[in-house]
Amino acid sequence: MTISRKEVARLAGVSEATVSRVLNNVGPIKEETRQRVLRAAEQVGYVPNVLAQQFARKRSGNIGVILPFVPKVHLFSTYYFSEILSGIGETVSRFGYDLLLIFRQPDDAKDYAILFRTHKVDACIVLGSRDVPEERAALAELQTEGYPFCLVNQRFESAEFLTVDADHAAGSGEAVRHLIGIGRRRIAFLNGPPEYSNSMDRYAGYKAALRENGLDVREDLVYIGNYSRKSGYLLAEEIGKRIRGGEIDAVFAANDRMAIGLMQGLKEQGVEPGKAYSLVGYDDSDASRMTSPALSTVSVPFYEMGKLAAEKLLDPEQQDDRKQRHEHLLPIRFLARETSLI
Amino acid sequence: MTISRKEVARLAGVSEATVSRVLNNVGPIKEETRQRVLRAAEQVGYVPNVLAQQFARKRSGNIGVILPFVPKVHLFSTYYFSEILSGIGETVSRFGYDLLLIFRQPDDAKDYAILFRTHKVDACIVLGSRDVPEERAALAELQTEGYPFCLVNQRFESAEFLTVDADHAAGSGEAVRHLIGIGRRRIAFLNGPPEYSNSMDRYAGYKAALRENGLDVREDLVYIGNYSRKSGYLLAEEIGKRIRGGEIDAVFAANDRMAIGLMQGLKEQGVEPGKAYSLVGYDDSDASRMTSPALSTVSVPFYEMGKLAAEKLLDPEQQDDRKQRHEHLLPIRFLARETSLI
Repeated sequence: MTISRKEVARLAGVSEATVSRVLNNVGPIKEETRQRVLRAAEQVGYVPNVLAQQFARKRSGNIGVILPFVPKVHLFSTYYFSEILSGIGETVSRFGYDLLLIFRQPDDAKDYAILFRTHKVDACIVLGSRDVPEERAALAELQTEGYPFCLVNQRFESAEFLTVDADHAAGSGEAVRHLIGIGRRRIAFLNGPPEYSNSMDRYAGYKAALRENGLDVREDLVYIGNYSRKSGYLLAEEIGKRIRGGEIDAVFAANDRMAIGLMQGLKEQGVEPGKAYSLVGYDDSDASRMTSPALSTVSVPFYEMGKLAAEKLLDPEQQDDRKQRHEHLLPIRFLARETSLI
Repeated sequence: MTISRKEVARLAGVSEATVSRVLNNVGPIKEETRQRVLRAAEQVGYVPNVLAQQFARKRSGNIGVILPFVPKVHLFSTYYFSEILSGIGETVSRFGYDLLLIFRQPDDAKDYAILFRTHKVDACIVLGSRDVPEERAALAELQTEGYPFCLVNQRFESAEFLTVDADHAAGSGEAVRHLIGIGRRRIAFLNGPPEYSNSMDRYAGYKAALRENGLDVREDLVYIGNYSRKSGYLLAEEIGKRIRGGEIDAVFAANDRMAIGLMQGLKEQGVEPGKAYSLVGYDDSDASRMTSPALSTVSVPFYEMGKLAAEKLLDPEQQDDRKQRHEHLLPIRFLARETSLI
């Protein structure tokens, strides 16, 4: 690259620095000189390196992805993150950007704006965001400063952030309607933490489906885990007792990991899904297709969500939409498998 | 943050710029001024922001990971990359760095040095590297310029690059010895492309195990795929014929994806692993544990390889080792499962 720039400079009779300034469009330059440099560049077929250009313009060429702190988990090996990141990565690379992964620490002060001020990123996507005051404040600062960002799978009530989400209320409603359809009436719900809007959406879908069918929403049937396999496993003892006692005849879990943990724990007690109780998970992860019996679940288009979020930030044709800060809800699909056969 | 720096400046009776220069240790400064600023900073309890510091020092705070171009695959959803990245990510985040993912394009000119010159990264890890002339040249340039980098799962003969690899020759030898041990004699080898040192290592292990046992190495038993499931699947027709004809009684595949593709293709012809032929894959991926029958395979410590590569670049205690540019080979373990029972 440097050799070519040198040639352009020689041919145009100017310094290399002048060539850079012309090609990167920075600083004042005489129109005549500009024309001479451009002609010389064309003559030698000089294509300036994108990175060098970005550097000269103080743009980073990076899209940031802020990742949640997930202790003791191989983050990229979880279906949820690996699929969203694949969708983001495909798009970012298609638009000639690199992807900067920013790992949140549990005790981090939330300052996302500094990523922009220090030119680490040109735009960012926030994953695993939770509706807590520090997070709202950090996002509101980005908004105020005009730094482009997009949330994935998390909405903030009454805040107008650009967001890509899936229709978890509809997906959860479908799952619970299916359980009612096969004759289940005492349907427990194993949800994730309420700071995630997608947990609350699932809860809304669960309640709506029960009510539509004249069933009571009972708080004693709602359990809260933390989306880990272990949190499902640990609830197996209590839920197992209640299944054997006839108090629970189905479980709808807010993700596959918790469903699989619960299923394993119940199996150890001799309680098999599909017989004593029906079970539906959520995510359509690889693992859900490989359990035995196969787990009924709800398919979420994570890859497409990541792809759309990156496009909203990078695609010039989506610029208007970006300014309007829409919330985009992608559709979801229920998949009946063996753990909820009649 | 700016407010605190202002306070330090006021208290020390100097400008904010001077405060920055003292705290970031850049430029000449009178010792007396330096002391005054440090005392003032201590007095107001000023902790300079790490990012702001890095910016002032022209350090990026980023570790780059150069990723291969893999068409039509959800990159982060492949076991190999997701595990290596998880290991890198855990370590990078522990040392307070961010991770910059750089997606290679198929037609990219290989210029890794520009990532350093433009301050995009402070060090980098190269994944999916292949021994081709442009790649060697790009890596040699990094070496010459003194930019820190580490290769994972790829060695370059006669070049002295810092490298973390696994002992694929030993792992492959074990796999083939196991097949010989259960009475197989006509063992085909489905390898990946030879530009990967880890393909050639596997081939070395395959040959060594055959020779040790007085068996000929026959070129007509060696097939080359591209590590995709599909490339294994497409070879099923020919290999199936030869299994039925008694020319092949076992297959050792260089990764699980190709083994699973081959197994699926053979199943469609009614040729079942474990009966007509024995099959061993490589990687111990999630999928290998979930096929039916379960796939015998070789377990590779990908997570630990990613972790070690990042530590070599970031851990001050590994600095000497970094300078010596060692090649590190992590141990590998053969796992007998159902596709190679006697």
